[in-house]
Amino acid sequence: MPETIKLAEYLFARLKQLGIGAVHGVPGDFNLTLLDYVEPAGLQWVGNANELNAGYAADGYARIKGIGALITTFGVGELSAINAIAGAYAERAAVVHIVGTPDRPTQDERRLVHHTFNDGEFGRFAQMAIPVTVAQVDLRDPRTSPELIDHALRQCLLHSRPVYIQVPVDMVSVPVSAEPLQSEIRVPSTERTAYSDGVIDKILEKIYAAKQPTILVDGETRAFGIVELVQRLVELTGWPSWTTAFGWGLLDETRPNVYGIYRGRFDTPSINTFVQESDLVLCFGPHFSSTNSYVQTSIPKAEAAIYITHTEIKIQDQTFRDIPALFAVTQLLEKLDPSRVKAYTPSTDLSRRPPSSYSEAPKDQPITQASFWPMVSGIVQAGDIILGETGSAGHGCRDMPLPKHVRTFVPVTWLSIGYMVGAAQGAALAQRELITASQYHGIQSARTILFIGDGSFQMSAQELGTIIRHNLNVTVVLINNDGYTIERVIHGLKQGYNDVASWRYLQAPAFFGAKEDTFTAKVKTLGEMRDLLETEAFIGVEGFKMVEVIMDREDVPEGPLAWLLQRQLGATS
Amino acid sequence: MPETIKLAEYLFARLKQLGIGAVHGVPGDFNLTLLDYVEPAGLQWVGNANELNAGYAADGYARIKGIGALITTFGVGELSAINAIAGAYAERAAVVHIVGTPDRPTQDERRLVHHTFNDGEFGRFAQMAIPVTVAQVDLRDPRTSPELIDHALRQCLLHSRPVYIQVPVDMVSVPVSAEPLQSEIRVPSTERTAYSDGVIDKILEKIYAAKQPTILVDGETRAFGIVELVQRLVELTGWPSWTTAFGWGLLDETRPNVYGIYRGRFDTPSINTFVQESDLVLCFGPHFSSTNSYVQTSIPKAEAAIYITHTEIKIQDQTFRDIPALFAVTQLLEKLDPSRVKAYTPSTDLSRRPPSSYSEAPKDQPITQASFWPMVSGIVQAGDIILGETGSAGHGCRDMPLPKHVRTFVPVTWLSIGYMVGAAQGAALAQRELITASQYHGIQSARTILFIGDGSFQMSAQELGTIIRHNLNVTVVLINNDGYTIERVIHGLKQGYNDVASWRYLQAPAFFGAKEDTFTAKVKTLGEMRDLLETEAFIGVEGFKMVEVIMDREDVPEGPLAWLLQRQLGATS
Repeated sequence: MPETIKLAEYLFARLKQLGIGAVHGVPGDFNLTLLDYVEPAGLQWVGNANELNAGYAADGYARIKGIGALITTFGVGELSAINAIAGAYAERAAVVHIVGTPDRPTQDERRLVHHTFNDGEFGRFAQMAIPVTVAQVDLRDPRTSPELIDHALRQCLLHSRPVYIQVPVDMVSVPVSAEPLQSEIRVPSTERTAYSDGVIDKILEKIYAAKQPTILVDGETRAFGIVELVQRLVELTGWPSWTTAFGWGLLDETRPNVYGIYRGRFDTPSINTFVQESDLVLCFGPHFSSTNSYVQTSIPKAEAAIYITHTEIKIQDQTFRDIPALFAVTQLLEKLDPSRVKAYTPSTDLSRRPPSSYSEAPKDQPITQASFWPMVSGIVQAGDIILGETGSAGHGCRDMPLPKHVRTFVPVTWLSIGYMVGAAQGAALAQRELITASQYHGIQSARTILFIGDGSFQMSAQELGTIIRHNLNVTVVLINNDGYTIERVIHGLKQGYNDVASWRYLQAPAFFGAKEDTFTAKVKTLGEMRDLLETEAFIGVEGFKMVEVIMDREDVPEGPLAWLLQRQLGATS
Repeated sequence: MPETIKLAEYLFARLKQLGIGAVHGVPGDFNLTLLDYVEPAGLQWVGNANELNAGYAADGYARIKGIGALITTFGVGELSAINAIAGAYAERAAVVHIVGTPDRPTQDERRLVHHTFNDGEFGRFAQMAIPVTVAQVDLRDPRTSPELIDHALRQCLLHSRPVYIQVPVDMVSVPVSAEPLQSEIRVPSTERTAYSDGVIDKILEKIYAAKQPTILVDGETRAFGIVELVQRLVELTGWPSWTTAFGWGLLDETRPNVYGIYRGRFDTPSINTFVQESDLVLCFGPHFSSTNSYVQTSIPKAEAAIYITHTEIKIQDQTFRDIPALFAVTQLLEKLDPSRVKAYTPSTDLSRRPPSSYSEAPKDQPITQASFWPMVSGIVQAGDIILGETGSAGHGCRDMPLPKHVRTFVPVTWLSIGYMVGAAQGAALAQRELITASQYHGIQSARTILFIGDGSFQMSAQELGTIIRHNLNVTVVLINNDGYTIERVIHGLKQGYNDVASWRYLQAPAFFGAKEDTFTAKVKTLGEMRDLLETEAFIGVEGFKMVEVIMDREDVPEGPLAWLLQRQLGATS
């Protein structure tokens, strides 16, 4: 190891150490020399169509591989991406946002250069990054740059939230100490506190005393690095277990005691009653935004809940600080005596009734949300990634049973429509890297399936070009229901502002550069849908493909959207 | 006039009073009820594909009509648009950014709702808007809402910069006083100050004494509302006059003493010498960013310059505050004795040599930047709007002579690639509104011509869908030079990161929903270009059309890009 190394080499070596294999972003005047070091560091440069989509992609990548990176240019680039960074903050995706900035003399002499407000002020955009990132560093001194990088990356891992790193052009190739690279960046380990043993014992007491206990796994569980431990607890106890929408796919749904998403009052009465009458709900990584909690109705009752959050444990009205989730769950597993926990024998079957079969329905019947999701679920295989964009797609897809190791993206809290196209690119690339590195549960091939409505698709459609350019195994299922159905059911059912431009969607693959023989299909009847599901070119995992499914613009899946729609119909009738 | 009016009605009535005819934006959960009031107020709802493009469009619209408006939703929408708002700030476009926010109870009770960070904090995004807007108001009280709206709009007009207005959902239909609507919003008028007469006299002295005076008109001139007055001064004096790139099109170039863009050391030696040896350069609306000043070389020498800025006059090293440009120029015109100013007789011809003619060149010769711009200039007619996106298009288009009343958009300072697609939509809509209202210099038909490179086009291509949906007279001339040529000439001439995905560009009109018979053409030789320029379907002003022009990826127009390219070639050879 040389004593010094160029700053950009240091930064990218760190990303590589953290398992990042590809960097998303867009070139710009102030990051070009930085980009010279990406591929020599053994990282792939993705090259997105625009920065917002690049940010979405880095987020999608991060949720699959644990951490992702994004490079933009000063001002125009970073601000274009800032909504994606905000989403990563809201939903805990660890995105390292690296911004190439003007050289130090330009900044210090307050020169009037492009990508500024022509007023000599260079600190404005870094200020704007503060509310949406957990660390911000500006690499202006070779002596401190390694420690600032390490600090930012550690915060990124620790919080699983975005960080912001500014690299002035004249700092890119300055020599910095290579020495810190010899030790990897790790999240600080946790020591026992004066009261942590007592808290764990208190939880164990409640576990042993519980008569109708359940487990609820929310999405922040992934960010805390405890997914496998929680899965073990689910298996060890055999307790009825659910996820939230955010946590969907983190538990192995093929286990008999794992029942998919708990939907509060939108769930079947027997499930809802069972959970709400539980005397103990062990809840990991709670994130009870209105959307993710079925309008607050899937939140366990306070007297039964134990919450394992990022660094706190909450038992009823008591909060115990500085007990990180990883520490807590590790301790629980170490100390748990499985013989003392409630055994559900004979087993309590809380499975949902399988959806109606449409295999005998007349083939000229139009495709509905009710018929579509059970039918399409047949294509999902172990290891696939499913993305259901905010809107009817993101709700409807929840009806699909999940094979092992399927990861999902559905509307949680940020709900920025258009997110899922970029996220699909990032997730599919991460998936391919994991498969290539034989780190994907022994799975040799898998695909990423994007379910998206027409309005959302228009937001960020150009990222199909990136998916195509990188030959990613992405299947796009576009639900064409003639505008923003999600908005229609909230307000303005018949209003023109919920219409969108009429695109010829299936021309997308050709327009964005796909091979001439790329599979596309348009289906609007049950018969066409059945034929599609028997078409080899569609069922096969490999390559890019796209189908357009025509549905009625006032048809929504059962659940909150149907409830909203009923309210609208009631109000307007 | 009723005594009260609903808040949304008040807001939109004000926009309408200010001359706004159409509102750009995207629907979202927290702005839907607000949108119910747009069309009843007599405003058109545009409905863009995404918020960044909507912001670009509102900016383009504002530069043509003086002020524009944008509606987004809380968090996801407003942050997606924030880069466009920043650009409007940097280059003085008056954009009213209206954000629909959660109702007051939701905010006050810190409810965990979507489009937040799930932490009960609702003030974060308004904080982020502060650095990029000149006024921020949150309409939380019916009693003060009218005055807050009026304050924000007055600031918007005064500075010709964006403002930020938050409208909580539960405020949309509250009654507010309608009384203020009876007086229009105006920029405060200017009174004489103790020294303003003295300053005007001092300028007049310099004007009368000048032996080789010139006039330089920069782009902020438009924002100060003095374009016509300055044009009158140019005609009255007959002095050799230029614009900057930012000011290009503000002066009538068909006048014999108006010579287009002054390019500093990239100009012809005779012009550069003439300007730099002037003993007086009357400069209006200076905005000398590196890009807009030809790397600082078009800045007049300090001892000769008099700067008329937004509210200050600068004469050599003295700055006189609180003399707004409109006041200053009005006073100058009132007091000026034309018989005492330097008369250029016989007239000094500082016209540029006409570009080489390619009419005799072999028809299979490839199209180059040098041949393209003179050839294509033939299609530009009085009243057209020309947009040359950042990159070779934005530099090359400057070689075209301008008919009367042609407005231009070229790279100035913000240089956010992709901007010009949205801006073209907004500008074309504003142009159509002005023509329809017979406020367009008597011109009955005109078009908007967008010259754009492939990389930039990919950033925001979906806004063609909006252009098509609204039947705007937009001609897209896509310069396909295989990636980010502007970046290649700065750094990374052969680097992969300056490549972009390979799209089939001419499929864009069909994909984005244009009529089947929409004119498209691909040209790569001089012969094909000549044929194109004789094709009626291309020359005609009406409707949407698109052509793809193939050029070499290392070919750039003369000027700064060629200079940068030479530096790269020198460095790599």
